[in-house]
Amino acid sequence: MLGGAATHFALAASFFDRVHVVGPVGEDFGEAELEVLRTRGTDVSDVERVPGGRTFFWRGRYHDDLNTRDTLDTQLNVFERFEPRLSEASRACEVLFLANIQPSLQLAVREQCSEARFVALDSMNLWIQTARDQLEEVIASVDCLVLNDEELRQLTGRPNLLSAAHAVLERGPWIVVAKQGGYGAAMVTREDFFSLPAYPLREVVDPTGAGDTFAGGFVGFLAGLPEPRRRERRALRNAMAYGTALASFNVEGFGTEGLAGVSGAQVLERVRDLDRFTRLEPIEVPLHG
Amino acid sequence: MLGGAATHFALAASFFDRVHVVGPVGEDFGEAELEVLRTRGTDVSDVERVPGGRTFFWRGRYHDDLNTRDTLDTQLNVFERFEPRLSEASRACEVLFLANIQPSLQLAVREQCSEARFVALDSMNLWIQTARDQLEEVIASVDCLVLNDEELRQLTGRPNLLSAAHAVLERGPWIVVAKQGGYGAAMVTREDFFSLPAYPLREVVDPTGAGDTFAGGFVGFLAGLPEPRRRERRALRNAMAYGTALASFNVEGFGTEGLAGVSGAQVLERVRDLDRFTRLEPIEVPLHG
Repeated sequence: MLGGAATHFALAASFFDRVHVVGPVGEDFGEAELEVLRTRGTDVSDVERVPGGRTFFWRGRYHDDLNTRDTLDTQLNVFERFEPRLSEASRACEVLFLANIQPSLQLAVREQCSEARFVALDSMNLWIQTARDQLEEVIASVDCLVLNDEELRQLTGRPNLLSAAHAVLERGPWIVVAKQGGYGAAMVTREDFFSLPAYPLREVVDPTGAGDTFAGGFVGFLAGLPEPRRRERRALRNAMAYGTALASFNVEGFGTEGLAGVSGAQVLERVRDLDRFTRLEPIEVPLHG
Repeated sequence: MLGGAATHFALAASFFDRVHVVGPVGEDFGEAELEVLRTRGTDVSDVERVPGGRTFFWRGRYHDDLNTRDTLDTQLNVFERFEPRLSEASRACEVLFLANIQPSLQLAVREQCSEARFVALDSMNLWIQTARDQLEEVIASVDCLVLNDEELRQLTGRPNLLSAAHAVLERGPWIVVAKQGGYGAAMVTREDFFSLPAYPLREVVDPTGAGDTFAGGFVGFLAGLPEPRRRERRALRNAMAYGTALASFNVEGFGTEGLAGVSGAQVLERVRDLDRFTRLEPIEVPLHG
């Protein structure tokens, strides 16, 4: 299936703002795939087709709960020798998402986008194990780290979510988002904690790309706001909700099918649902003791 | 350590109402343990001390994330031959919690409490595997099933939380609460879905008893309300919050230490925190597509 971080991210983020995708593809990446990437005006002029190359490939098997998975095959392919050279338009971006790939490539892109006011980063266990120094370097240069909660534990050596998040907050980022698979996601800043469940669905078809779709909604929502508002607690919480709503459509189909044809109104409807599903309105009762 | 479902449940529920504990203990259960059970006026006259008997015993090892565990030893001991004979006061209870034990014992207690207006039930994988028929019978006789989400999947054969919960709702209960360990808990009724994260803590000392403490807060809060209010959406959601707040104190210490000395004001403070940690206040933005 067509997938990959850039594809899922761009499909989600393009609901909010114009997305510029940077990255290499192989000769197997045809016009039909580029057309999906161009959805809602996404700019693909920095997508570099490598002659004779093959596109990045991932294959895995999900466990019964669709929440944990085993990677069966990862082929970096065209990413192995990629040297990002960004166009003027991409370099001028105000908001940047560094999708999960070798930290050295993330650093190269980060450095070229010197104007960026908000930078988010994803990574994975492979780079924690094999490229920790470079990963730490790129983490120190971003505003927001978005990571699976298990990887957050691996990165920091702290089994506790809150403790692990605060360890990251000491290294540079001022937001940590822990993706929790089917349980949702939690956001930690120095001043705030926020948790949101996954959107409840009767059937999940394919969780692949849910994390990147979430990131697309999260970062895209913030990109759609002017700079000062991006730092407000309510804006950051809404970014989580839009990311969660968009991810819920993604998992309802294989590859990019889930989000295909979804309207802005449908996304808004699920954001409103998430508010209803989590509203507490405390009742204070007399307690003994 | 002193523990067990009845102990943890009673310590939590006694914040709201008078608890009557029913069950057998062995000669190893002394006056000090009974004294803990008597906290905040809990009635222990139906706690039966079996001459020559040994108290129920559990030992386990938690994984690094403190979210999953392996049982190393379970000894039913005095529960093996227990035949519950409830006092008049216990039989007259309006609200009943059937803690996790053989379904045949749960059924015997359920039948003696014929006046109960609200009955909740906990169980575990062992009974799903070895006593399914009796478990199904007792499930059909209760209002609320409280179960770990993995056990909910085992019980129904449905890997999806929402789908599994609705399968249970067809069998009698009108509330299903899925305990999700460190991720919190979700509540499903025919009309509603509600999800609440675990209270975020920098350090978790011992998760043992968190589920029973949660149940004590959940059922105890509802027991403190008059019957019609118990069925209201907002009341049920608050029951989840009080259960979650109380469970967070429990995991901060071993055995019953965590909840010892906790005041009603401290519990209320954490309920208010949970409201703050989950409040979304949607921002509706124009979306492309």
